[in-house]
Amino acid sequence: MAVAVLVTLDGEVHDPTVPLLYADELAAVRGDGAFETLLVRGGVVCKLEAHLDRMAASAAAMDLSEPDRSFWRTAVEVGVRQWNSISNADAMLRLVYTRGRESGGGATAYLTIAPVPERSVLARRDGVSVITLDRGLPAQPAEPLPWLLSGAKTLSYAVNMSALRYAETQGAQDVIFVSSDGYVLEGPRSTVIVDTGDALVTPYPEHGILHGTTQRALFEVAAAEGIPCRYEAVKPADLVAAQDVWMLASITLAARVRTLDGADRPAGPLAERLPELVDKAITL
Amino acid sequence: MAVAVLVTLDGEVHDPTVPLLYADELAAVRGDGAFETLLVRGGVVCKLEAHLDRMAASAAAMDLSEPDRSFWRTAVEVGVRQWNSISNADAMLRLVYTRGRESGGGATAYLTIAPVPERSVLARRDGVSVITLDRGLPAQPAEPLPWLLSGAKTLSYAVNMSALRYAETQGAQDVIFVSSDGYVLEGPRSTVIVDTGDALVTPYPEHGILHGTTQRALFEVAAAEGIPCRYEAVKPADLVAAQDVWMLASITLAARVRTLDGADRPAGPLAERLPELVDKAITL
Repeated sequence: MAVAVLVTLDGEVHDPTVPLLYADELAAVRGDGAFETLLVRGGVVCKLEAHLDRMAASAAAMDLSEPDRSFWRTAVEVGVRQWNSISNADAMLRLVYTRGRESGGGATAYLTIAPVPERSVLARRDGVSVITLDRGLPAQPAEPLPWLLSGAKTLSYAVNMSALRYAETQGAQDVIFVSSDGYVLEGPRSTVIVDTGDALVTPYPEHGILHGTTQRALFEVAAAEGIPCRYEAVKPADLVAAQDVWMLASITLAARVRTLDGADRPAGPLAERLPELVDKAITL
Repeated sequence: MAVAVLVTLDGEVHDPTVPLLYADELAAVRGDGAFETLLVRGGVVCKLEAHLDRMAASAAAMDLSEPDRSFWRTAVEVGVRQWNSISNADAMLRLVYTRGRESGGGATAYLTIAPVPERSVLARRDGVSVITLDRGLPAQPAEPLPWLLSGAKTLSYAVNMSALRYAETQGAQDVIFVSSDGYVLEGPRSTVIVDTGDALVTPYPEHGILHGTTQRALFEVAAAEGIPCRYEAVKPADLVAAQDVWMLASITLAARVRTLDGADRPAGPLAERLPELVDKAITL
């Protein structure tokens, strides 16, 4: 989908059909930066502070200077106002914060707003077929390995995109990564939620995964409505035994896992209620 | 170092002080593309065909269409001619080949030429202090994991750059990655060469590492001069026991490992000859 709105961190609105980045931009030549993707719904951006929190954590992990929240808030305000003048549909807002140019000069920071991709709309409506893939890395390394940037949302997403293309060759639409020591991790762009029958469960963020903003919002609302929610080590067998499994993400929101490694997964008791809870959660 | 020359794959010369890439460039927002870095020396680009071979392999691993070599050769010719009109010093030529814009329109492909970074000159002259770091991934997974893109030179280098920054916090200049199953892999931007006393040895490329163009060139020349050269599984203990260890790369060429994990490494019997062999090898 074409970018409709482009705003740099100084609040300046740019024409998205004109190049913005230099040939030696470190985001482009090294994938060296952090990003966030947020939903714009009803003319309002969802969970901005949670995303700014996570971008600050990613920046710290990558040794980028702390994002200036007041500038980001203003740029987002300018961008959303611009989007609202074009459309009242849901939109995808992306924050990009990079190490800047190789030749120096400091960080590059901008946001784009584009229509929600068709695949998100379909995944939300119809659910997704999913395969599990080995992520190669351990969930519980013997010692911390901070240089691997696990849990940081970096611009180096080549492996995530490659896993999704691999899934496509296997006739599937999405992936659940499993660690080399046998734990369920996450999707290439989503958080895994399991309905165990007595609770909603998601893997420990400490297992080297990205702490989901949508998952956190859901857990708050679900817990308030009396559904127990926990962080727990999840094994692939737990996915098979679950009442239901969902992939949660900021733009797609809740996509039910319709088939897992080729096996059909009939809808569980929360199949209709969970997406409603997510819809409610993200606008709070 | 500032980019001095910028040429797109159509052979057009661009002003590198003007932005080239769009805000939704997938290299920038996903690290989704391949690259190569080549030395320009004496007005000539070194080992172009070996680098084009490797870019083709990276592209295949990432499901990008095959790079058109005749276009790349022409663009390189144009770029090097431009560089030669500015300077006769060594230079760093970078090929960038990406999936293009998220909004579609096909691949983005360009090259830049910039002066050789100061750190490369110093590493070549003085050697480097190195620490070993766990790469988290196995060298010999039970099954192939093609979606991890091991051995492809992708633009998603955030972990490589993070490891180098981590080394700096430990007072070191470079890193040798070790696999989770205990094998020596590679540097974040170099190939490891070990002088065992009876041969030059480098880890198997099948161990999920990038097959080094400089290492291959060296092995050809060294073998022709009667020095045995082999691919072999290398363990961290082999580094300690070695006569010498080098980090080989296209721009830095040969940097001798001067200290490893804090321990001094006195120069071995090939300390002077090996860099000469590399100099010879890359211009053949």
